[in-house]
Amino acid sequence: MTGIPADTAEEELDRVMEGAAAAAPALAAMRPPERAALLRAAADELDSAAEELVPLAIEESSLPEPRCRGELGRTTFQLRFFADLVEQGGYLEASIDRADGKWGMGPRPDVRRMLVPLGPVAVFGASNFPFAFSTAGGDTASALAAGCPVVVKAHPGHPRLARRTGEAVAAALAEAGAPAGAFAVVYGEETGRRAVLHPRTRAVGFTGSIPGGRALFDLASSRPDPIPFYGELGSVNPVFVTRAAMAARGAEILEGYAGSFTQGAGQFCTKPGVLLVPRDADLGPLVADVEGRTPARLLNDRVAGGFAAGLDRLSARPDVEVLVQGAAGADGWTPSLLRTDLDALLADPEGLLEECFGPASLVVRYDDESRLLDVAGGLHGQLTATVHGEEADEVAPALLAALSEHAGRVLWNGWPTGVSVTHAMHHGGPYPASTSVLHTSVGATAVRRFLRPVAYQSVPDPLLPEALRDANPLGIPRLVDGEPE
Amino acid sequence: MTGIPADTAEEELDRVMEGAAAAAPALAAMRPPERAALLRAAADELDSAAEELVPLAIEESSLPEPRCRGELGRTTFQLRFFADLVEQGGYLEASIDRADGKWGMGPRPDVRRMLVPLGPVAVFGASNFPFAFSTAGGDTASALAAGCPVVVKAHPGHPRLARRTGEAVAAALAEAGAPAGAFAVVYGEETGRRAVLHPRTRAVGFTGSIPGGRALFDLASSRPDPIPFYGELGSVNPVFVTRAAMAARGAEILEGYAGSFTQGAGQFCTKPGVLLVPRDADLGPLVADVEGRTPARLLNDRVAGGFAAGLDRLSARPDVEVLVQGAAGADGWTPSLLRTDLDALLADPEGLLEECFGPASLVVRYDDESRLLDVAGGLHGQLTATVHGEEADEVAPALLAALSEHAGRVLWNGWPTGVSVTHAMHHGGPYPASTSVLHTSVGATAVRRFLRPVAYQSVPDPLLPEALRDANPLGIPRLVDGEPE
Repeated sequence: MTGIPADTAEEELDRVMEGAAAAAPALAAMRPPERAALLRAAADELDSAAEELVPLAIEESSLPEPRCRGELGRTTFQLRFFADLVEQGGYLEASIDRADGKWGMGPRPDVRRMLVPLGPVAVFGASNFPFAFSTAGGDTASALAAGCPVVVKAHPGHPRLARRTGEAVAAALAEAGAPAGAFAVVYGEETGRRAVLHPRTRAVGFTGSIPGGRALFDLASSRPDPIPFYGELGSVNPVFVTRAAMAARGAEILEGYAGSFTQGAGQFCTKPGVLLVPRDADLGPLVADVEGRTPARLLNDRVAGGFAAGLDRLSARPDVEVLVQGAAGADGWTPSLLRTDLDALLADPEGLLEECFGPASLVVRYDDESRLLDVAGGLHGQLTATVHGEEADEVAPALLAALSEHAGRVLWNGWPTGVSVTHAMHHGGPYPASTSVLHTSVGATAVRRFLRPVAYQSVPDPLLPEALRDANPLGIPRLVDGEPE
Repeated sequence: MTGIPADTAEEELDRVMEGAAAAAPALAAMRPPERAALLRAAADELDSAAEELVPLAIEESSLPEPRCRGELGRTTFQLRFFADLVEQGGYLEASIDRADGKWGMGPRPDVRRMLVPLGPVAVFGASNFPFAFSTAGGDTASALAAGCPVVVKAHPGHPRLARRTGEAVAAALAEAGAPAGAFAVVYGEETGRRAVLHPRTRAVGFTGSIPGGRALFDLASSRPDPIPFYGELGSVNPVFVTRAAMAARGAEILEGYAGSFTQGAGQFCTKPGVLLVPRDADLGPLVADVEGRTPARLLNDRVAGGFAAGLDRLSARPDVEVLVQGAAGADGWTPSLLRTDLDALLADPEGLLEECFGPASLVVRYDDESRLLDVAGGLHGQLTATVHGEEADEVAPALLAALSEHAGRVLWNGWPTGVSVTHAMHHGGPYPASTSVLHTSVGATAVRRFLRPVAYQSVPDPLLPEALRDANPLGIPRLVDGEPE
């Protein structure tokens, strides 16, 4: 069992999905400390297996060791973060409206609402984060935290890591008391499509490309019973540098930019793909910086092929100038830097703002700062949009407002690569950043994707779920008549 | 302008949608008391226009006057309820994570999350609630509360009421300071499809039939940029009566049932379409009760035709016995009562649990109470499911648990018709009760359908939205580092 896992047979997928469905009620019924213990056990097991997992990740993803170790740490932090969240209990949104004979629209009964797990979730991991957005990544952690069984469709970019990660998680969950079937890994592209269409699947989490994600979104929507499809797809993450910011700290900004767009060989969904700067900005140091960066391997041939094609398309355009021509060598790709003008961008935003997944970015020169608003106003949905500015910049308020209409995260004087797992983080955005504009794949509220509300009307206290009983035996934050209890 | 409004021309719809999009930023930027004032102004205007609106509703919907008056009261209560919610501000979900150099996965920046309006919302009202689920109903109220412009596609069952209601709302909003374009009514089935596909539309709210809703859901999902489609479709709202409950208060339960399924001529999405009772239950008084009910007009010919066809299908089945044969007369339809057995139901749940919208319901006799769990476990998604039981019933905990997996609202010893507008109410459920299992069309959380999160990273205080500034100038409830401020 050290080779590449074979595709999962259709009958086996059926067994896995039936097992997940059978596990759902028991997993949903686990009390908060029990479910939190599952997540912590998985985190501990993954930490313990680091010396096995990290070499596999390096081998299959070509990512450097420090990155792989750091990412594993992020992944186990995330599992523990969700464990804390489960114990805290606010995510259940427990809300109690007592019967009220004087309610304004007529007497109301006792109504109590809380969130309950959706049921089995199919998770499609990404190749570029083999730990944090894959088998035991954010979708898996948040779905398990919500109380949903998880069936991971292994990413073909790291099948052996996926299998080994899956074994570690499954063993830890079983040991910690999870019902059989609560977690499984399956293999194969057709298996993935079948999982999206499987009657037992109640939701899908996906991180990947626009074409791949859209195809699965369409499948999920085509079902006799459509299910939620949470796809985090593509983004060019534009960065707007005001004239004043460039004057005040241009060198620092350009250095930060080069570091951000080449980080992880540019294989971040939050890579800044476009940087807008005043025409007179001195790009000399930036060009030298980019030229001096060492090559880095791309994740796999498919990613490399897609990157090369996208870079060729951009480079061949008459309105694009190649400032630094990156190339593939024995040690991977050196980064590329391209340049165009704001007028060209506005003339063909579709062509120039296509995501080019890999180590390349496009500098856009502008003359009139106020026209940054035209660019911002015409953006497709973005995971992030960034302004490097000065507080006194006249354009800043309108620019931030326009960007908040099109992006899920708006940054000031920072870089979008690096998405912290926190309570308030939002990693999503209007389509195509996400197929589900209301939801995030990172941060505390990611659990909400896998929960649905149920209202209990006039149900006697002993028959209510614990979260809604008068005595609040779980000790969770609740609303009573719309106010904190 | 007193005739039936003509279908809206395509160019006019374009103008309306562009106007809505143009209004969106200004509407989103209104401070909470200003936006609340819009909703209250609309409520006041509708109340003032009652003597005009109620007769129109009676004429176009055939619903009796007390019902129309009561429903208008519910509608204006709902607008004011959302106004209070806007002022209270908790719906913004403001959440502040301060920068933390010691955060477990590595230093985190300052990240602040809140919800912002999606943009223009297309609303499709229902025929059976010409006020509360139509032009100025729950979808409109919650979308405006969220800060989204609304374009209502008038229901063809009450086009003149829709126009007059729309005029009242538009006038009130304009008077109260809403931007032009914040609210409009359009007409025609093709216009509705175009509105779902229009590039400016950011979400759709719909209440109606499964085929109609599914067709529009498919359109929304087929867009180059799919948008959320919140459709509240169909439900049979099963009611389970335990042996002990029937023994303790059978007469009362059967009387309540007859009242509930004939209310509004059975034209409620929450009508109890199925009642499961012990085989030895005495149905004599129920039959007499139903036979004695007066006829009531159905909403329109389309509803009547659909009802007659559905009733014929059920009545013609060899496994269904007609206890009371309703019929159409000059004053409308008298109610029908049908009967079958639990084994028949389990043999063909699709056929016997089809929604039959109108004054008819199906009594299902059971022998073995524990088999109620088989029925509950096999249900499609439901808006409601009800148990009439005694607290000591052995079957009760498992039955409530099973029903909560398939229904959005679970009732005990009550009737599902009548959905109060409260903080904790949930009116939705797994498909086909709703196309969006996570959301509700009634109650405080209905606003969430029209909001999306934005995270602001390291944005200076003066450039942040007011809701996220350090001083909390709006005075709203917020989380700071995951805890209430």
